[in-house]
Amino acid sequence: MAQMKPRTLSGFMELLPARQVQFDRMVEILRKSYSLYGFTPLDTPLIEASEVLLAKGGGETEKQIYRFTKGDTDLSLRFDLTVPLAKYVALHHNELSFPFRRFQIGKVYRGERAQRGRFREFYQADIDVIGDGKLDIINEAEIPAIIYRTFTDLGLKRFKIRINNRKVLNGLFALLGLEERAGDVMRTIDKLEKIGPEKVTAILRDDFAVPADTTRTLLDLLSAADPMAALAPFQGRNPLFDQGVEELSTVVKYLAAFGVPADHFMVDLTIARGLDYYTGTVYETVMLDHPEIGSICSGGRYDNLAEYYTDKQLPGVGISIGLTRLFFVLEDQGYLNDALNTAPADVLILPMTEDLSPAISFATALRQAGVRAQLHCEQKKFKQKLSYADKLAIPFAAFLGEDEVAQGQVTVKNLITGQQQTLSPAAGVELISAWLSGQGQAAPIREPEEA
Amino acid sequence: MAQMKPRTLSGFMELLPARQVQFDRMVEILRKSYSLYGFTPLDTPLIEASEVLLAKGGGETEKQIYRFTKGDTDLSLRFDLTVPLAKYVALHHNELSFPFRRFQIGKVYRGERAQRGRFREFYQADIDVIGDGKLDIINEAEIPAIIYRTFTDLGLKRFKIRINNRKVLNGLFALLGLEERAGDVMRTIDKLEKIGPEKVTAILRDDFAVPADTTRTLLDLLSAADPMAALAPFQGRNPLFDQGVEELSTVVKYLAAFGVPADHFMVDLTIARGLDYYTGTVYETVMLDHPEIGSICSGGRYDNLAEYYTDKQLPGVGISIGLTRLFFVLEDQGYLNDALNTAPADVLILPMTEDLSPAISFATALRQAGVRAQLHCEQKKFKQKLSYADKLAIPFAAFLGEDEVAQGQVTVKNLITGQQQTLSPAAGVELISAWLSGQGQAAPIREPEEA
Repeated sequence: MAQMKPRTLSGFMELLPARQVQFDRMVEILRKSYSLYGFTPLDTPLIEASEVLLAKGGGETEKQIYRFTKGDTDLSLRFDLTVPLAKYVALHHNELSFPFRRFQIGKVYRGERAQRGRFREFYQADIDVIGDGKLDIINEAEIPAIIYRTFTDLGLKRFKIRINNRKVLNGLFALLGLEERAGDVMRTIDKLEKIGPEKVTAILRDDFAVPADTTRTLLDLLSAADPMAALAPFQGRNPLFDQGVEELSTVVKYLAAFGVPADHFMVDLTIARGLDYYTGTVYETVMLDHPEIGSICSGGRYDNLAEYYTDKQLPGVGISIGLTRLFFVLEDQGYLNDALNTAPADVLILPMTEDLSPAISFATALRQAGVRAQLHCEQKKFKQKLSYADKLAIPFAAFLGEDEVAQGQVTVKNLITGQQQTLSPAAGVELISAWLSGQGQAAPIREPEEA
Repeated sequence: MAQMKPRTLSGFMELLPARQVQFDRMVEILRKSYSLYGFTPLDTPLIEASEVLLAKGGGETEKQIYRFTKGDTDLSLRFDLTVPLAKYVALHHNELSFPFRRFQIGKVYRGERAQRGRFREFYQADIDVIGDGKLDIINEAEIPAIIYRTFTDLGLKRFKIRINNRKVLNGLFALLGLEERAGDVMRTIDKLEKIGPEKVTAILRDDFAVPADTTRTLLDLLSAADPMAALAPFQGRNPLFDQGVEELSTVVKYLAAFGVPADHFMVDLTIARGLDYYTGTVYETVMLDHPEIGSICSGGRYDNLAEYYTDKQLPGVGISIGLTRLFFVLEDQGYLNDALNTAPADVLILPMTEDLSPAISFATALRQAGVRAQLHCEQKKFKQKLSYADKLAIPFAAFLGEDEVAQGQVTVKNLITGQQQTLSPAAGVELISAWLSGQGQAAPIREPEEA
């Protein structure tokens, strides 16, 4: 038969089984962590009407989007989880209770140029709190606590959450007479870490006519060792600035109450998160040993989630983790914990008699006890079956030979320790259960030892 | 601002939060059930190269498929999880261990005509066991046990798994001289329940020249009260038939060992599962009180999973649940269990002092104990906040007023029983934890009381 060479599209992640288990474990931890903070799960279609998805329109988005027609309907694949959320909240407004706290973990699509570590299909893991008209500042303080807990639960230790407030920045620009150029100045300052202060000064002077001493004042402030102290002298001159400083103080104050250790967050006045979407607190999260990766969890406060769909004022605060890219980076940097149990089963049962009933009964008993069991009844050599267990890292094998069956027993072998004993099926179930619960579940991320 | 009316495409399910929790709970139970039988999770791209996805080509599939180009690449959305599995196994053959047992729960796309209960985007939940060259019959016997356990765990009681074997049917056709017309005869017989024996006889006689007495022999056999006994007289005349009968007997024999109650399965010789894909045991699962819904879980044994991609012989056995449609039907028929806890949080914390620190600490303590907690600090009236908890069915509220804060205490109210007490935060955590663990987790399906 003429065959088609099987292949997976470039930019589309497809994992081997053990890696998939590791990825799924990360998703499970995210779900659990988000749930503990009272977020409800949401699942929206991957396909939306193009006019709905592109209501905001313009820019990079339209170039990258997967857009096509089916019949005479103009369709697009979602490129993030925020626009579908805006649609959802506007559409179901009357059936939701506010504040509406939802998490969504799902695939999104962007036709980016194919290159290493760039994905066209990738998971985002988002949380958002949406208010109806108003939303208290406490929500902005809680978000870093969720980031802290989530990454800690995943097993990451050396990371830092950077916090800023857009009102502080915007107020500052007003104070310095840069109001009209705020967007341009912010976008330029956003590049500070990448291109350095000289180039920022030059761009601001040449392209936006910002005097060099104004830039110096600005950069001194932005790079101050104690940002809150550095902000103090500017207070009392601009209400927006003052409000931003107060919000930032409040967020910092409550972070301790939320249990975020002081070495896991910092105020960083250089963070602007581009564009015009965010209006209050903004967040970035960096891996201390891999700053080159950039932020692994970002977001912020916005004033109007769904202005393209409704007149209702829906302020919110949210963050997003680019999960597929994070997983790729973690694997690349050796951060995936190989101690995680990625076996498809806890026990491989090897019947060695014609009648399989005792083996089947043992499998059923194990499963009743919550132990993952696989019967291996294929016509293969005993050695091949053990090698199968070894390759899949299955921790236990159970043998049911003539002797065991005659005596109503089973031989259980711990394939890690090599220990083996013959005992009743019930005792076998207990032995295996006890060992498994003693192991616990390892975190999916383990930081490499420091050099 | 000019606004776009928000809408969700027809044929695309989008659930409200409480329903979404119910759906997710079903998915969680499926994942757990499949895992207990040693299946590993898999996740493949939703988009594949069209030539890969359509390697088999032809038929309804091509008409319904979502196909489009991006740049100059011809892409398609997957229409099932079997073709991507075939591609995956052919592509990663050298890196997998066989038998390869995988489950996959994911969305698939078919551009069907929009009508009630028909979905264009829907979840399938599949399991398959793939052998390399060979695959033992025990796998075919284990599948109904997995179906039984899965639906039982979901909370469904009145269902029956119908089992047949394609070798029995094919052998029988050979015995009756219908070999050349086997496909046509099977497809016609597949309609027996829908159109009745008279019409089947007429179609077989008029369209396929099957003598009426042959049809009568066939239909008598197919509708026999004791199918295995009815098959006996035909044995010894056709090797394929004999092998099929032996396989069917083996499957039935082991079902008891696997713990499937006799009233939850039956041999049904009328089941053919259309087309030419299946070669051994085939399955359908019906809800006893809703036969009109058709099979809610179907599948069978096939000899060659990936013949369009590889010369390797990859026999397998698998089943698929159309989860979105099943969920729609269950809701429609009143089978969704309203006793399931669908609240986004277990406790709503209501601080009533300026300083939120004690409330935040209590929230943190609850979350550390695995209790889902939400702080409600919005500027709303006390009554509104309680009504919020009520609407979301949050079982507990915790109040921290001046008195509580002064005494380092918290008032916990069970919103279901109305009981309320003021106690230390630690005792509050314990009280709530104990109540929650006493509740357990209800099954997502509950059958309506019989009339």
